[in-house]
Amino acid sequence: METGVISTAADLPLDARVRLIYDGVDLVLKTYAPELLVLEDLYSEYRFPRTALLMAHARGVICLAARQREVTVLALAPAEVKRAIAANGAASKAQIQTGVQRLLGLAAAPRPSHIADALALALTGFSRRGGRLR
Amino acid sequence: METGVISTAADLPLDARVRLIYDGVDLVLKTYAPELLVLEDLYSEYRFPRTALLMAHARGVICLAARQREVTVLALAPAEVKRAIAANGAASKAQIQTGVQRLLGLAAAPRPSHIADALALALTGFSRRGGRLR
Repeated sequence: METGVISTAADLPLDARVRLIYDGVDLVLKTYAPELLVLEDLYSEYRFPRTALLMAHARGVICLAARQREVTVLALAPAEVKRAIAANGAASKAQIQTGVQRLLGLAAAPRPSHIADALALALTGFSRRGGRLR
Repeated sequence: METGVISTAADLPLDARVRLIYDGVDLVLKTYAPELLVLEDLYSEYRFPRTALLMAHARGVICLAARQREVTVLALAPAEVKRAIAANGAASKAQIQTGVQRLLGLAAAPRPSHIADALALALTGFSRRGGRLR
């Protein structure tokens, strides 16, 4: 299992940030040639509209990279992922970390929580495609 | 002067739509090699959050295409553009169409209004970079 985070400096212009995200995702897709890319659905209502809009820019270039490499994109609602991993659509970040740790038999909970969230998405996508979560 | 609209079918999956937009914009940038690409700033508060989020996906891949072709991106607030074109930060679509028609000496107002909006952005960007609007 490989995990990672693509980070960009908040003070870079948006076009530079989306390019870094695109290049990072494209490299992952090129390296691992996955069958599936799982993304979190954007809520239609956000408490932080500015954050949601920034995330949607990133999401746009991630979808583009997937499409260009012919990788299927699956978008899952956060509540759906929480139910699959922690049997509770309103599970906390800590519950997701514990659930992911248990399902993958990891010695420690994945940190930062972004990585647990990504693994939770991947596991739920795997399960949707017929894989079995223990 | 060349104008155009890149359209995608609403029933296509998001990854297919962003790819069409990216390919369309990339072709324009490759063909015309502009110095500047002007985009409308996204409002931080929208009446239609779902539309704003979809637009942000498109905006992400447009910024990416610009960055990859080393074209400077300038984002302008709608009110700023309206002031530059129609001397009124709350100008109507019709006023923008008339303003663009007058500034460019066109025989008719540009239609659809998307094209007038794009020309208004381009003219305002041109003016910001030291160009002179009549």
